[in-house]
Amino acid sequence: MSLSSPHVHVETAPLAAALAFATPSARRFLLELDLPMRHAGQRRLRVRGQWRGPADAPWVVVAGGISAGAKVASDERGEGWWPAQVGPGRAIDTDRRRVLAIDWIGADGSLDQPIDPADQADALAAVLDRFEVPRLSAFVGASYGAMVGLQFAARHGHRLDRLVAISGAHRPHPYASAWRTLQRQVVALGREEGQVSRALSLARQWAMLSYRTPEEFAARFDTPAVLDGERARVAAEDYLAHCGQRYAARWCSTAFLRLSESIDLQQLDPGGITVPTTVVAIAEDRLVPLSDLQALVESLGGPARLRVLRSPYGHDAFLKEDAAVARVLRESLEVAA
Amino acid sequence: MSLSSPHVHVETAPLAAALAFATPSARRFLLELDLPMRHAGQRRLRVRGQWRGPADAPWVVVAGGISAGAKVASDERGEGWWPAQVGPGRAIDTDRRRVLAIDWIGADGSLDQPIDPADQADALAAVLDRFEVPRLSAFVGASYGAMVGLQFAARHGHRLDRLVAISGAHRPHPYASAWRTLQRQVVALGREEGQVSRALSLARQWAMLSYRTPEEFAARFDTPAVLDGERARVAAEDYLAHCGQRYAARWCSTAFLRLSESIDLQQLDPGGITVPTTVVAIAEDRLVPLSDLQALVESLGGPARLRVLRSPYGHDAFLKEDAAVARVLRESLEVAA
Repeated sequence: MSLSSPHVHVETAPLAAALAFATPSARRFLLELDLPMRHAGQRRLRVRGQWRGPADAPWVVVAGGISAGAKVASDERGEGWWPAQVGPGRAIDTDRRRVLAIDWIGADGSLDQPIDPADQADALAAVLDRFEVPRLSAFVGASYGAMVGLQFAARHGHRLDRLVAISGAHRPHPYASAWRTLQRQVVALGREEGQVSRALSLARQWAMLSYRTPEEFAARFDTPAVLDGERARVAAEDYLAHCGQRYAARWCSTAFLRLSESIDLQQLDPGGITVPTTVVAIAEDRLVPLSDLQALVESLGGPARLRVLRSPYGHDAFLKEDAAVARVLRESLEVAA
Repeated sequence: MSLSSPHVHVETAPLAAALAFATPSARRFLLELDLPMRHAGQRRLRVRGQWRGPADAPWVVVAGGISAGAKVASDERGEGWWPAQVGPGRAIDTDRRRVLAIDWIGADGSLDQPIDPADQADALAAVLDRFEVPRLSAFVGASYGAMVGLQFAARHGHRLDRLVAISGAHRPHPYASAWRTLQRQVVALGREEGQVSRALSLARQWAMLSYRTPEEFAARFDTPAVLDGERARVAAEDYLAHCGQRYAARWCSTAFLRLSESIDLQQLDPGGITVPTTVVAIAEDRLVPLSDLQALVESLGGPARLRVLRSPYGHDAFLKEDAAVARVLRESLEVAA
């Protein structure tokens, strides 16, 4: 049986068994997929993911930033990346919906090739095929996940009821692309010189500046620089170093380089999307400016609306503004419940 | 004869002759000064500079960013950094004013110590002493030069008639400090690994992103990334690389590190400044936000006014918005002509 869209030809690997095993609250899987990738050609990929929620509930895909993965809700096995929004009784209610998420293609560092956001959308469609899920009641994506959600809506819209795209657009903003390419060049320098971890930490610290805002830094780090030996240390330095080191300990440079690059490969005609879409913008977002999300909403080919939130956390607001984000999610999803 | 202020004790080096020689339009000098530095202790420094303009004209100090120096106007010897504003008939008119500028302490890379913006102000005061200039009719500073101008007004205000401070404040913004400390860490990594030039180029490219705006990048670099071999190149990449390489070819890493750090050492109580001051802010400036310049104007101890310009060039507007900047300069300087 194949539920593949006519736009993408996904060959499932018949000899590779779908490895699915239960945990008390989530069902995890590891699939092998043969995927025709946009830039990297035909590839056999291993895709990890998990779902949770009742068997008869409508399916919802949840997707986050390039460093977010399949573990969305928190449970006894540890922290998910969006526990405030996904779980029993939450806005994305795992008592009433079956929530599916994957680790991004490339997140394990095994694929050193250009990865298009369209490839992630096709991988998700192939996963749905494998589990014989004909359609999704919703795709909720934030940041890179919103880019992938837009690709899913454009390429597999016939099997999607509703898209919620938070802080992600049909294109990367040219200034944000410049910011990311410099991060990648720092990592490239570190790789050549055997300083991968230090360079990856630096790149993550640069990324943090793009995820947050001057307003937050002004409130948190309003103390003068101090001389430490013969060098000045500025107030945000320890916080940033901590963020960088934690990231570098968990991620490999290939995954960072290819997923960062993937954001910059986003290209999409919003006119081809007819799925009802809610776009959520943060007025203070320095990475995905409101103006790009306004342009997106104005050019979508189907019913579309824009919700604008304000937050000192900028691009990271979807991870920090729990109440406001929950309100928008409930409001956007209730028609598709 | 000493015209030193009571706030700073500058010993002139009696055996070091003031080397001053004429060019057709500018008089250049190289002085040795003994300067009590705020963090680095007593130091003997060589200060290069130049002046131009009639002997009986009122003196004006002009000071720019950390990569700007004594060569302000353009002449047959090459390009200055502010030719649109300084020269015969320009807003800072070298037919009617004697314009003095120096290369920043640390710009030659010979001093690997923390340099405070107050040290630069004291060096300028010592230069004025050496040339027996009792007072300035104006100090016009932009970016770092505005920080130094504020220090001059605070420490040597009794010999200053008027300050014009463009895009520089009494403190570094905490977010901008974070941005700069990461630049310095990239250079530190490059120095340790024998990749100074490449790291310096990268740091300059990061700095360029802070000097400019997303609006400018959106207008100039609105084309998708292209795959170059197996890696994506974003639209702004060549432009940024060009800026970085040009900078790295002219500057040494020690100068960059110490002058970048110097910005982050700025600390000043605006209440102590009683000199009439015009503060010029750029609404789009990402490095020195309007809110900090509003706070500065509100806390200055003397007559103060704020002029706000709008520009897609952000922090770099003082180098790009020739007509608007000239208008503000003429208006601010005419009372002191």
